[in-house]
Amino acid sequence: MERNIALSLRYEGTRYHGWQVQKNAVTVAGTLEAACAKVVGHPVHLTGCGRTDAGVHAMCYVANFRTSCRIPVERLPYALNTHLPEDIVVLKAAEVSAGFNAIGSCIKKEYTYQIYNDRVRDPFYVHRAYFYPKRLDETLMQRAAEQFIGTHDFAAVRSVGTDVRSTVRTIYDCGVTRQGKLLRLRVSANGFLYNMVRAITGTVLYCAEGKLRPEDIGPILDRGDRSLAGPTAPPGGLYLTRLWYEEEVDLFD
Amino acid sequence: MERNIALSLRYEGTRYHGWQVQKNAVTVAGTLEAACAKVVGHPVHLTGCGRTDAGVHAMCYVANFRTSCRIPVERLPYALNTHLPEDIVVLKAAEVSAGFNAIGSCIKKEYTYQIYNDRVRDPFYVHRAYFYPKRLDETLMQRAAEQFIGTHDFAAVRSVGTDVRSTVRTIYDCGVTRQGKLLRLRVSANGFLYNMVRAITGTVLYCAEGKLRPEDIGPILDRGDRSLAGPTAPPGGLYLTRLWYEEEVDLFD
Repeated sequence: MERNIALSLRYEGTRYHGWQVQKNAVTVAGTLEAACAKVVGHPVHLTGCGRTDAGVHAMCYVANFRTSCRIPVERLPYALNTHLPEDIVVLKAAEVSAGFNAIGSCIKKEYTYQIYNDRVRDPFYVHRAYFYPKRLDETLMQRAAEQFIGTHDFAAVRSVGTDVRSTVRTIYDCGVTRQGKLLRLRVSANGFLYNMVRAITGTVLYCAEGKLRPEDIGPILDRGDRSLAGPTAPPGGLYLTRLWYEEEVDLFD
Repeated sequence: MERNIALSLRYEGTRYHGWQVQKNAVTVAGTLEAACAKVVGHPVHLTGCGRTDAGVHAMCYVANFRTSCRIPVERLPYALNTHLPEDIVVLKAAEVSAGFNAIGSCIKKEYTYQIYNDRVRDPFYVHRAYFYPKRLDETLMQRAAEQFIGTHDFAAVRSVGTDVRSTVRTIYDCGVTRQGKLLRLRVSANGFLYNMVRAITGTVLYCAEGKLRPEDIGPILDRGDRSLAGPTAPPGGLYLTRLWYEEEVDLFD
């Protein structure tokens, strides 16, 4: 009987052209599918919880695949990690119901955008945070971030490129915290459009710079015009940080 | 009149063959000397506060050089950083007394060795911490670390290679702390021998594994036999973290 196996993983995305398998480009899914094939003994097709872009990281990512291989799930992380490069790690594996699908069963996701805010950059945050030397006021940024909460058409903060049926999503929470020189913008939603968190970040930073006011954000979303919002922040600051599923899955600690 | 300029810097050492200039190898000093030459308009010879090895990092490093260039010191960090790769950053510059020497005037240094201790490795600590999957008891490690405190001949915990007049040094403090999955061994001393902190780390880890007892360390130091102590831990976990100078220098925040 075929089993449905879900994996939770973590990856440092700098070296990869994103999650999604592409011809002639090294991707996280392509690398992980090759490792899975070696361990289970047959070609594997992975379904991921979303498309992360080139250079984007995941503290937590979920993918599932079907196999008739009888290897105990608790041995899978170790077996897979011996076939994976150091910047991708399988944290846990679990057998899930036949209907489970890493993207379809996902009801909520959280992304965190990390900004390194100091006069001089830090060599340990290269590709890991967006270096922003101008002093940022996190209280003002928090006010800007809150404007995105709710069910809206988010066409104004996405990049065109992928066809989607609807650009309406629900953001449950959107806020900014500071820990020393690190600012973090956390956004949780029932789904994200292409480049949405990076465009939200760019827009919140525009407010911090006085190029937009927090009260401009509502009307910008209403107009749905991408050119009115802030720029798309670079990928290295973005992390997929949390996932919620409709069924309980034993993938997270 | 020639000025003596000191710089504090931070670097992520993964890409470098250590601090010291070498022919046919990319080093931190070589890279920084090239940037200095561009800014001051003449060849520059840097004196560093110590030789860090290939792959070793510095949260804080001090180097000095002499120049007749009149550029204001407060403009130097920005000017140098525009000529430096992202993994080396000049934090601050200060004019120091004619007799100041980054290594000769340094009276105390602190190194921190970072261990990532969990069942599975973390892709964000590759080259930044030593991945150690076996459960480590930091209380036992602390007891082992304390044995190194004091004035001893440290020949048993150094690699032969560089000629030194004496292998006697004074360790002021040596201790282990845990923060979640990260263990940190901090050692401060009036000077360090080649690979000394990495050999101390390997020895403390030997104690954690039961291959040595903390009370074995004193006799091992007395015997001065490198083969009795633990192995040299890998370079990626090692950070130069703090420096003390005999004169007050305006280089640290």
